[in-house]
Amino acid sequence: MSLTSIIIFGASGDLTHRKLIPGLYNLYVKQRLPQSFQIVGVSRTAFTHEDFRKKMREALATFSAETFQDEMVTGFVENLYYVAGNAAELESFHALNRFLQEKEGEHGNRLYYLSTAPSLYEPTLMNLGMANMTSETPAGWRRIIIEKPFGYDLQSATRLNHKVHEVFTEHQVYRIDHYLGKETAQNLLFFRFANSIFEPIWNRNYIDNIQISVLEQVGVGNRAAYYDSSGVIRDMFQNHLLQLLALVAMEPPSSFEADALRNEKAKVLSSMRTLKPEHTVRGQIKGYRQLEGVASDSQTATYAALRLELSNWRWEGVPFYLRSGKSLKHKISEIVVQFKRPPHNIFGVRDRVGFSPNWISIRIQPDEGICLGFEAKRPDTIQETHTVVMDFNYQESFGHGALPEAYERLLSDALNGDAALFTRADGIEAQWKIVDPILKYWERNLDFPLETYEAGTWGPQSADDLLARYGHAWKLSLKE
Amino acid sequence: MSLTSIIIFGASGDLTHRKLIPGLYNLYVKQRLPQSFQIVGVSRTAFTHEDFRKKMREALATFSAETFQDEMVTGFVENLYYVAGNAAELESFHALNRFLQEKEGEHGNRLYYLSTAPSLYEPTLMNLGMANMTSETPAGWRRIIIEKPFGYDLQSATRLNHKVHEVFTEHQVYRIDHYLGKETAQNLLFFRFANSIFEPIWNRNYIDNIQISVLEQVGVGNRAAYYDSSGVIRDMFQNHLLQLLALVAMEPPSSFEADALRNEKAKVLSSMRTLKPEHTVRGQIKGYRQLEGVASDSQTATYAALRLELSNWRWEGVPFYLRSGKSLKHKISEIVVQFKRPPHNIFGVRDRVGFSPNWISIRIQPDEGICLGFEAKRPDTIQETHTVVMDFNYQESFGHGALPEAYERLLSDALNGDAALFTRADGIEAQWKIVDPILKYWERNLDFPLETYEAGTWGPQSADDLLARYGHAWKLSLKE
Repeated sequence: MSLTSIIIFGASGDLTHRKLIPGLYNLYVKQRLPQSFQIVGVSRTAFTHEDFRKKMREALATFSAETFQDEMVTGFVENLYYVAGNAAELESFHALNRFLQEKEGEHGNRLYYLSTAPSLYEPTLMNLGMANMTSETPAGWRRIIIEKPFGYDLQSATRLNHKVHEVFTEHQVYRIDHYLGKETAQNLLFFRFANSIFEPIWNRNYIDNIQISVLEQVGVGNRAAYYDSSGVIRDMFQNHLLQLLALVAMEPPSSFEADALRNEKAKVLSSMRTLKPEHTVRGQIKGYRQLEGVASDSQTATYAALRLELSNWRWEGVPFYLRSGKSLKHKISEIVVQFKRPPHNIFGVRDRVGFSPNWISIRIQPDEGICLGFEAKRPDTIQETHTVVMDFNYQESFGHGALPEAYERLLSDALNGDAALFTRADGIEAQWKIVDPILKYWERNLDFPLETYEAGTWGPQSADDLLARYGHAWKLSLKE
Repeated sequence: MSLTSIIIFGASGDLTHRKLIPGLYNLYVKQRLPQSFQIVGVSRTAFTHEDFRKKMREALATFSAETFQDEMVTGFVENLYYVAGNAAELESFHALNRFLQEKEGEHGNRLYYLSTAPSLYEPTLMNLGMANMTSETPAGWRRIIIEKPFGYDLQSATRLNHKVHEVFTEHQVYRIDHYLGKETAQNLLFFRFANSIFEPIWNRNYIDNIQISVLEQVGVGNRAAYYDSSGVIRDMFQNHLLQLLALVAMEPPSSFEADALRNEKAKVLSSMRTLKPEHTVRGQIKGYRQLEGVASDSQTATYAALRLELSNWRWEGVPFYLRSGKSLKHKISEIVVQFKRPPHNIFGVRDRVGFSPNWISIRIQPDEGICLGFEAKRPDTIQETHTVVMDFNYQESFGHGALPEAYERLLSDALNGDAALFTRADGIEAQWKIVDPILKYWERNLDFPLETYEAGTWGPQSADDLLARYGHAWKLSLKE
């Protein structure tokens, strides 16, 4: 039987012990890992296999508390190994390759997981290529998951794609956006395409505007130095928000196959109009410039709001409002589809604008679910209407703990060769093409407003003003 | 100030003390009765005003227990009067008229409520006319509410309409169907026309079939003798079920005005295809023929199921399944709209029929509400779907006790001259035109199956078979 190796570059990083090892452990518990597997951690620090196993066992006690079972964990960590190595040194790769080959014998599959600092992506890729570790042979497949950030702007992302393609062919490459591993993000596809009643109204004839809010309650924390070189557009919009937008807005693919799906996503993202500066708002949390590692005149946005427009038959004229930021009042990821008002009010008491328009909310987190706001007659009145809500909640319907971690699903998919939930080269470039102009504009126009906002608020006032200019307002299903 | 008199013919009957007086009392509590009003009970029994007041106070203690307040009730019953009279004797009407005129002085409005045995409708109408009690003058309006049953078949209903029109003009006439006074029935209009997202899919392109179930748990009880001459078609289908069907199926009226609404209802009912015998099922509860007052070879149906077809652009090809019966497993009135399956399944694991179709349920009673069944991804699977439900519940949204009794609203409407929720002459005849052929067919074809069913079941098997022939099945939102 063929051994499958999962090789994590950047094994001493946060992601490994917080997400990857817990995700792999959960797959192990559910017997979804290949029957014969090993997980090999790689980073510069010198560890023994035992050190690494001990560290990961501790991580599981913390981050897999709910599924932690002593014997199960013992069985799992026996499959963990550690190889110290330097991404810049070819010899490290030869050593790693020897270690793997020794275990593999004649047959072996390999899933590389690139979770290092972004600056090490290129040398790692090059050395994997030079050490002849990337070619697929009848003896086993070779795949690579690449963590975000994938590039820093359009140019660097394109360059990175070239580097990737020098050593891997596209079908081997899994660019990860963990947002797509979330059940509720995946369910967007099912909501739209496993039901017959939403798709007929999912277009410019019935929809007034669509809002995507990914609000964070946490601040930049101890990542300030890194964050200052990135900002909210690169950190959240370029990947998560645009991926959600693609799921909401794309045409129905003919199948759930990776390329059918990714063709549609790339298509819809490519149809985005070039972003106008006046359709952007940037904000910075008060006190940000005093954080360690942040420039005292930093122009980095910790909050942004955008008005985007798709130029195609389905969406012409329907604005997509996106917002995301740090240190906000609540932690919420939600998509709200706002419908147009009924064309005619047969109930005479109120003028047409008296009806509240219908909306559908898809809550990605927390309190995952879907709800629909509609007008009902207020009882014991002649013809007064009132907005009521039909609600579906994941936990209520499927039980507590039913939602697996995003990484669990994505690791499993990559092991099974299913790239549907990963971003293709053209997709990632399409995403950068959308945000690149605005990043450049903000960098070059220091007088473009950078509004500060207080922690614990909903962000800068200008974000509300942006929508108000078009007669719109931010909406969440949150009851307050 | 003008006095408004509400004159109840049949004041010693059940309806008066169970529904009418409690309904009027609730309007009184809410200060929705005219400032100057009196309620005059009329029937053959000899009562004093005080007898009547005492009886009605007792009725309120039972049937208005929740809103019963001693002082309030005392204030209310002071406005109650009683006049003994015989519907067949003109002199009784002159006496009643004198009593009313004495109280009215120069100005007075009158709302007559015809709640006697149906056989007394004609003589009462004639005598009201002969006593000159029906003409509207500047001194006050004259209106009449007519209880069901309105006729026994098409011919008698048409004849009754003629009799009504001999003494009243149509705008004075309020044919009551208390089902239309229910909040949830009214809300059907708001659901369809105060929202923009349902109407686009409310047609043959998206809807597979529509079901209306009005199931009773009670048997025929002590009404057996009356019931045996009526049966479920006259008792439930001709009025309640067809009215609900009209609300679900009609085109949007241009306004909520009585005639705009009733034009659309008459129009849609008139577009019904003549019912085919093979699209009907009749059933009789086991032991029915042994009830007192029931013929030992009675052919009366206590259960029926129909497949109806509307012949118009919106509904061509969409079957409407209606069922109602006595002594069934549950008490439920519910409309279920079943949608077609999605045209294409992008999720490969299951063939197209694997998806459950979407449905919307409108629960008239009990547990009044609206819910929507749709497919969601089952968490922690690759692409398995599962039907989940978005739910809206009146009591949860508007608080307990928020739903007033149907009669309360209808009495108030008639007092305010709003006939929107009452049936017009052409409407009632359209309803009879639909059920008449089948009543006649059943009467003339004694060999047409009359299946007996056990109390506490869902009714005869043939009702399931009727739908199964077309690949359909009865559906309720009930969780079991």
